[in-house]
Parts: sequence; structure tokens; C-alpha cells
Amino acid sequence: MTFDTSEHSHRRLNPLTGEWVQVSPHRSKRPWQGQQEKTETESIPAFDPTCYLCPGNKRSNGEYNPAYTGPFAFTNDFSAIIADGPDGTINDGLLQAKTEKGICRVICFSPRHDLTIPELDVSDINAVVALWQQEYITLGKEPFVNYVQIFENKGAVMGCSNPHPHGQIWSQESVPVEPLKKQVHQKAYFDKHGRTLLSDYLQQEFKAQQRIVLENEHFVVLVPFWATWPFETMIVPNRAMAAITDMTAAESQAFADAYKRITTRYDNLFSISFPYSAGIHQAPTDGVPHPEWHWHMVFYPPLLRSATVKKFMVGYEMLANPQRDITPESSAERLRALSDVHYKNVK
Amino acid sequence: MTFDTSEHSHRRLNPLTGEWVQVSPHRSKRPWQGQQEKTETESIPAFDPTCYLCPGNKRSNGEYNPAYTGPFAFTNDFSAIIADGPDGTINDGLLQAKTEKGICRVICFSPRHDLTIPELDVSDINAVVALWQQEYITLGKEPFVNYVQIFENKGAVMGCSNPHPHGQIWSQESVPVEPLKKQVHQKAYFDKHGRTLLSDYLQQEFKAQQRIVLENEHFVVLVPFWATWPFETMIVPNRAMAAITDMTAAESQAFADAYKRITTRYDNLFSISFPYSAGIHQAPTDGVPHPEWHWHMVFYPPLLRSATVKKFMVGYEMLANPQRDITPESSAERLRALSDVHYKNVK
Ligand SMILES: O=P(O)(O)O[C@H]1O[C@H](CO)[C@@H](O)[C@H](O)[C@H]1O
Ligand SMILES: O=P(O)(O)O[C@H]1O[C@H](CO)[C@@H](O)[C@H](O)[C@H]1O
Repeated sequence: MTFDTSEHSHRRLNPLTGEWVQVSPHRSKRPWQGQQEKTETESIPAFDPTCYLCPGNKRSNGEYNPAYTGPFAFTNDFSAIIADGPDGTINDGLLQAKTEKGICRVICFSPRHDLTIPELDVSDINAVVALWQQEYITLGKEPFVNYVQIFENKGAVMGCSNPHPHGQIWSQESVPVEPLKKQVHQKAYFDKHGRTLLSDYLQQEFKAQQRIVLENEHFVVLVPFWATWPFETMIVPNRAMAAITDMTAAESQAFADAYKRITTRYDNLFSISFPYSAGIHQAPTDGVPHPEWHWHMVFYPPLLRSATVKKFMVGYEMLANPQRDITPESSAERLRALSDVHYKNVK
Repeated sequence: MTFDTSEHSHRRLNPLTGEWVQVSPHRSKRPWQGQQEKTETESIPAFDPTCYLCPGNKRSNGEYNPAYTGPFAFTNDFSAIIADGPDGTINDGLLQAKTEKGICRVICFSPRHDLTIPELDVSDINAVVALWQQEYITLGKEPFVNYVQIFENKGAVMGCSNPHPHGQIWSQESVPVEPLKKQVHQKAYFDKHGRTLLSDYLQQEFKAQQRIVLENEHFVVLVPFWATWPFETMIVPNRAMAAITDMTAAESQAFADAYKRITTRYDNLFSISFPYSAGIHQAPTDGVPHPEWHWHMVFYPPLLRSATVKKFMVGYEMLANPQRDITPESSAERLRALSDVHYKNVK
């Protein structure tokens, strides 16, 4: 018997984090009698007078949103991390703690209550990207902000508490656990090879042609070799860049195009508004150059078998090791076969 | 202003894993308009003829369960990792993989379809502990098994696909990511201090008296200083032991008592069968002595505010850093105030 990744249980290394993922190719054949998710209702109005994110409406803190017409950013009314507060540490044997300052922002993608990213025009998505760039610069300039995490929780199953399409930005003093791992491994690679880890990885993927979902002039969307979530993907710029603010106008446009196309394919996979957590990993804003960083956007969607059966990252995965039930190659194949035209626009 | 852990956002170090958790004390005050979980129906029969785990019934692979009367273990019909298969590696630049062998077992806690751990007698729980010990020994003796992960996914919200109370054991060649972190940090601590990390930690907790939920002669149940899930706890033996097989009979009995009491309090918290993933972290079965290991059982329950509102570990948590919305001290206080008598037994 020879090792066949589509047949035999194996582990794969994520070179960005240094951690292994367990791959169990045939496990999704087991019968499912467990929890089924609700599919969300599709009759969403363009404007909802009770939505605290729609233009002109009252938010939960009593303030009124402006009558905004493009993407709109404001400071989270229930920020997990705030800019004011004392500085302090606890340094008592095995009890170690320190205060953490930061700024949490909310980004409404557009005034439209009913349009998610794949349903927006590329130019509207480009406006979101421009706002992200502006926020990354403004937040990063705060002396106490060393890292800026841009992300979106899409869908109730991903803990999204308001259906108005929006993302968040949490910025803070410390570099959080996940980007810190990626920083360490990208730095070691760059110091050794003089090229970014992801530049070399892209070369391998262009050669393999097994995990690439789609491409345009400046970006590749692929299911990484080490993907953990069933339909996990990443958008990677061809050119090594530390942050989204390094993009040219043409690259920003191409990024918006790639972002629209992968999210459209996600919706098309099960003909629903596809839930995920997504976000951008990029260089810390600590005032130091980061030539090792090759920024990228990751998508972690929970669904596995259908619109209603998700992958549970529970017992074994929480206590021992991330584990997936289908191969990254088979997921890439399915996503590659889908159309760039949103299912709602197919007559 | 001075740093008050119950007021100000901060980070805490988990010395077992070396990773930080973000604590945002006041964030659970935000309004919740997001997903609500179903509470599970409570009318469960003692025997279910359609259940593939009940005694005497047919399993999905066509085999029949024996008419078992105590806890019952068998090899998973849909094992993620199996004992047979080739040995192989992929070593191609940034693509790194290796085959993984192992054995996956299912443990029915008792013949009763309707009785979860907190509803069993201490002696019946002790029988489960004895079976775990036996499985740890048998699996650990396999030359290709270097780590044995005992765990339970309890409740549909935790991906449990069959309501018959049961746990699982996945044993394998590699030490998985999470226990490996704990191994590294416990070893460094033991090499430096000549005592296990958790022995010293328990001393600090006995002194602080803030996070201990309950105790008996041989065990402590506490919300660790670095807890991530809202009502996360751990059961820790007073005496440093590498594995559950090192327990005396009196210690096994005391462990069963502690296990029953913490799970009873969990059920009492919201008067429901409380969901969680739980399991035991202990020494690898790699044939090497592990004096640094101090085994313990962890509970990761998802619920936050009520029986229907859970904590979503999503965008920020998946992409950046684990984050909690209430302090470990307030969770410990709530669990400490609860009764050891199961709510179903209160007249
Ligand atoms: O083995 P089960 O109960 O079918 O499946 C459950 O537990 C496994 C181990 O934690 C997970 O991989 C699955 O996602 C989960 O649904
Ligand atoms: O900020 P929201 O949308 O209220 O909350 C959601 O996203 C946060 C950041 O990922 C999480 O901490 C919450 O658990 C989740 O429900």
C-alpha cells in the first residue's frame, strides 16, 4: 500500500502556524443524526427601521447613525477592549495578567440591509477595502495599537448578532495568539530564504494545480494544503506585501474581484447565504518594518455536508487537535466547479 | 485608577499552554439578538429500540451490541484514525504530511439511554473511570499508540450525534497539538522547580480561595485563572500523578465523586442537561517516564448567558485570540453557590 492522501488518515503541517491538522478522508461517510442548523430566511428588506445599523436609525447607545451612503465605520457600542483604563500587571507565580487597551470598530459594508458581500458590485466592495485601509492606518497610528484585526462573522450560526451586513475591527496593544504564530514562522522563513513563505508556497500551488479555486491578475484564491475547516480558503496576493495599505489601485480592484468571486461561489455551493468567519492577517502596526509578512485573507466556513449540517470542532478538536473529514483537494475541486454568477441572479 | 480584573480588559497567561486569553469583563452586558439554541427535550426513555448504542441493538455496521450491564467500550464504526494502512510522508518544500495510525473507541457510560454522568451513582461513574483506566493501558500498549485522548461531547450543541450518554477515546501515533503544548510547558516547569506546575498552581489557588468550586479529600474542581470558556472548569488531583492509572482505589472513588458533583452543578446552573466537551489530559504512552505530567480533566461548556445563549468563539477568537466576556472569578462564584443535589431530584 502506498500513502494516498485521498484515502489514508494523515497529518499535514501548517507552516504559517507550525501546527498540524489531522485529515480523516473518509469520515464524512458516517451517518449524521446530530444537530441541524436552521437555514436563514431570505426575505430581508433593503431598509429595516428596527435595525440599529441601518442609515439614520438609533443605535443601542442612543446615538443616531448618519444617513450614510457607502461603507460606514463607528466605534463599537459594546467594545471588548477600550482605549481608556489603567495600566497594570499581575505577576504572582503562576498567575500572570496584564491590562489590554485597544479600539473596537464596526464597519457596515453598505447602507443596504439586504446585500451581503457577494451581492455587492465590485466597486462597492472596493469601497469597503478602501475603508479597511483607512482604518488600518488610523488605528495603527495610535501609540497603544500594535495590531489591527479586521474580520467578519457572517450568519447567525457564526454568532453574528445583527443581520445588516457588517464586519468588525479589533485593534489592541498585544499581537494576538494567531497572528503571532504566523509572524514567528514567516520571520524564520524570510530570514532563512530571503523570500516570503507565501511567495514560495504560491509557486508550489501554481505547479500542483490541485488546490487553486480561482485567480485574477493579482490574486489567487485557494484551499490551503493545511486547511482545517471543510471549505476553508485564503485569498493571497501574488506580490509579497506586508499590509493591505501596500496595494496599488489595480491590486485593490483585483482583491475586491477575488473577494466577490469566492463569496459568490460559497453562496452557490448550497444555494444559501453561506456563513463564515473571515478576516485579514497582516503586519503588526508596531512601527517596525515587516518584510517577512505576506498579508492574506482567510475564510473559515463551518458548513460540511449541506446547508444545515456543520462541522463541529468539539471534543477531539478542542482537547487534542484540529481535524477535518474531507480533503482540501476535494473541497477545492468542488469550489472550482462552481459559477461566478450568484445563484439569485440565475434565471 | 488601579487595575481591577473585574472591571478592566486584560490578558491572562495559561502557563500550561503558554498562550494568552483576552478577558473583557463587561462585554456580556451587550444586547443579544443573535442565535438561540434549542433546549433539548427531557422525555428520554431508559431504553430506545432505535438507538444504535443501547444494549442488544444493531449498530450501523450491522453488528449487535451485547446485553451489557455496565459501561461498554467498542471500536468506532466510523473511526477517524485506524490501525491499518501504509506508512508514508510527503516532504515537498512547504507541503509536509505524514500518515497517522490509531484506534478510536466509543464508551457507553451505562446501559441506560436516559442517564447522563450527573444522574449516575458515584459507583457507576467509578466503573466508567475503571474502564478508562483499562483502555488507557490496553491502547497505550499498542506499539504505534503514543497518546490516548479520552473525551465526551455532551449535547447536540456540542456535535454529539447520538443521545445515549457516551464518550470517545481517540488514540494515535503523534502527541496532538494541545497536549503537546501542555507537555512542553509542564516539562520546562518540572525541570526548573522539581515540582509539577499544577502542584504549585493548586497551592496558589488554596491561598487565593477565589476560583475553587468544590473539593474532596483528593481532588479540587476550579475555574482556572486562564479559563477561556465562560464556565470552564478543571478537576485536578491534589497529588501529582502522570496518568489516571496512577490513582489509588480511594482516589478513583474521589475522582468519581468530584466528576458527579461538578456535572450536577452544571445541570443546576440553568436547570437543563448542560452541554460541554470534556476530557482528560495526561501523559503520552510513549514508553518514557513523565514525572512532569500532572493529569487533569477539563470541561469546556459553550453556554454563556442562559440555557439558549452560547458563547460564540468566532471571528476575533478564531482569527486572533481566545476571548471571554465574564471573569473566571465570577463564574467560580456562581458554580460554588449551586447545590450538589441534581435539580431533577429536588421535590
Ligand atoms: O464522533 P462523532 O460523535 O460522530 O462526531 C463528533 O465528535 C468528533 C470528535 O470530537 C468530531 O470530529 C465531530 O465533528 C463531532 O460531530
Ligand atoms: O461582536 P458581536 O457581533 O456582538 O459578537 C460576536 O463576535 C465577537 C467577536 O468575534 C465574539 O466575541 C462574540 O462571541 C460573537 O457573538
